[in-house]
Amino acid sequence: MPRFALKIEYDGAPFAGWQAQADQPSVQGAIEAALARLDPGFAAGARIAAAGRTDAGVHATGQVAHADLARDWDPFRLGEALNWHLKPAPVAILAVARVDEDFHARFSAIERRYLFRLLARRAPATHDRGLVWQVLNPLDADAMRKAAAHLVGLHDFTTFRSSICQAKSPVKTLDEITIEEITRPEGREYRFHLRARSFLHNQVRSIVGTLERVGAGSWSPDRVAKALQARDRAACGPVCPPQGLYLTGAGYAQDPFSPARDGGDVRRDVK
Amino acid sequence: MPRFALKIEYDGAPFAGWQAQADQPSVQGAIEAALARLDPGFAAGARIAAAGRTDAGVHATGQVAHADLARDWDPFRLGEALNWHLKPAPVAILAVARVDEDFHARFSAIERRYLFRLLARRAPATHDRGLVWQVLNPLDADAMRKAAAHLVGLHDFTTFRSSICQAKSPVKTLDEITIEEITRPEGREYRFHLRARSFLHNQVRSIVGTLERVGAGSWSPDRVAKALQARDRAACGPVCPPQGLYLTGAGYAQDPFSPARDGGDVRRDVK
Repeated sequence: MPRFALKIEYDGAPFAGWQAQADQPSVQGAIEAALARLDPGFAAGARIAAAGRTDAGVHATGQVAHADLARDWDPFRLGEALNWHLKPAPVAILAVARVDEDFHARFSAIERRYLFRLLARRAPATHDRGLVWQVLNPLDADAMRKAAAHLVGLHDFTTFRSSICQAKSPVKTLDEITIEEITRPEGREYRFHLRARSFLHNQVRSIVGTLERVGAGSWSPDRVAKALQARDRAACGPVCPPQGLYLTGAGYAQDPFSPARDGGDVRRDVK
Repeated sequence: MPRFALKIEYDGAPFAGWQAQADQPSVQGAIEAALARLDPGFAAGARIAAAGRTDAGVHATGQVAHADLARDWDPFRLGEALNWHLKPAPVAILAVARVDEDFHARFSAIERRYLFRLLARRAPATHDRGLVWQVLNPLDADAMRKAAAHLVGLHDFTTFRSSICQAKSPVKTLDEITIEEITRPEGREYRFHLRARSFLHNQVRSIVGTLERVGAGSWSPDRVAKALQARDRAACGPVCPPQGLYLTGAGYAQDPFSPARDGGDVRRDVK
């Protein structure tokens, strides 16, 4: 059966997370329902696999999933048909590519990229409501950068993972945390960019919640180093809420959506 | 009575526009209802005036209004109290300043600034739904810039104003149209920045709708010059929808919200 990779954007607000669950709306369920309108295998209950199983309320701008279909679809037409059937859910298929049978959206991924948006201002968010985590006072970005530097590299991240995390090992390499500071009307926005081969459950939200305490002056940057060394979930700062978090991309040895590949993508007709 | 200037951000989607109307939700009505919880004059029906009377669905990040209150409020406390009473409407008071009695949000304004956000991509908007106008194909930004250059300066804008526009004269000076091009996941965003002392009814949406035709290749840049010279509403391109439009600011001889002024603003407690 031909295999297709899907690049997916979604607003996580109305969903109980990526993963399909009985009696709860999920992003995976919405896409599988759209696939079921087009393909007998999905009408009979076939499933898709994704690079990152985002939690309830978490967004994506570059989630990647794969699906095996009965028919050898034109990738552009498949993307258009899925977007049609996904309406009105806030889920968009950004690109579709024909991939080899050995491509697996989850197991072939060698990198995941996340963005966390934190808005600091007194007045409530309007256009960004549900799309940022808001705090009332501005933060010290340099202090957060100092603290973040302790977390980059190969570490035991037991402190920064959920107690229900199912990963076999808490030892992971965090390749990047960069913090952008952006001026907003009467406020500041902090954008945390994190990159790793893979992340532990709640790792990004545990890290950003802890760095916010540093930015607010409640924690010293050194306390983050000590918290990491403690390898103790109790040493973590508060886990921040999901609505500021975005899965922005997954990396593969060969980018399935690169225009250089055969099979094209949904940009085919577009200059 | 002490007069206060308010800097206001709102999502226009749930409102029939800025202006208060019987039996229709309006931004002005929402703010006056919040003021009525704090002030006897507004409880008795006093009104506020604003720099720009935005249409239904149009957003703002820097609307300015003024209100006369019975009590000499601390500006910071007034902003906090208004934001409290405005909940859950997507309207935020960004700043409050005590101003002189001769300050008038509408008549003292010497400049209005607008932003129009146009998203070009095949896949439907998710996070930006209701916050951009979407078209399916990318546009030629340079052609739009050439066409826009014909509109900058002192002109009779009869072609680019609504037939129900109530302004006495169609002759206005348009000080700026700049067009930014931004990369979006699998798409392009075009941001039109327009600045003038004042705008005619539907002027920005008439201009952007016409420029989009140029960007799409249906109109030549010169046709925009001819349409302007025609001084005929029928020569205008399609008026684009309201959800991409933002009133981003109003200018005054002296900025009422400048930190240098006495009276402070809602940022007072914030570094």
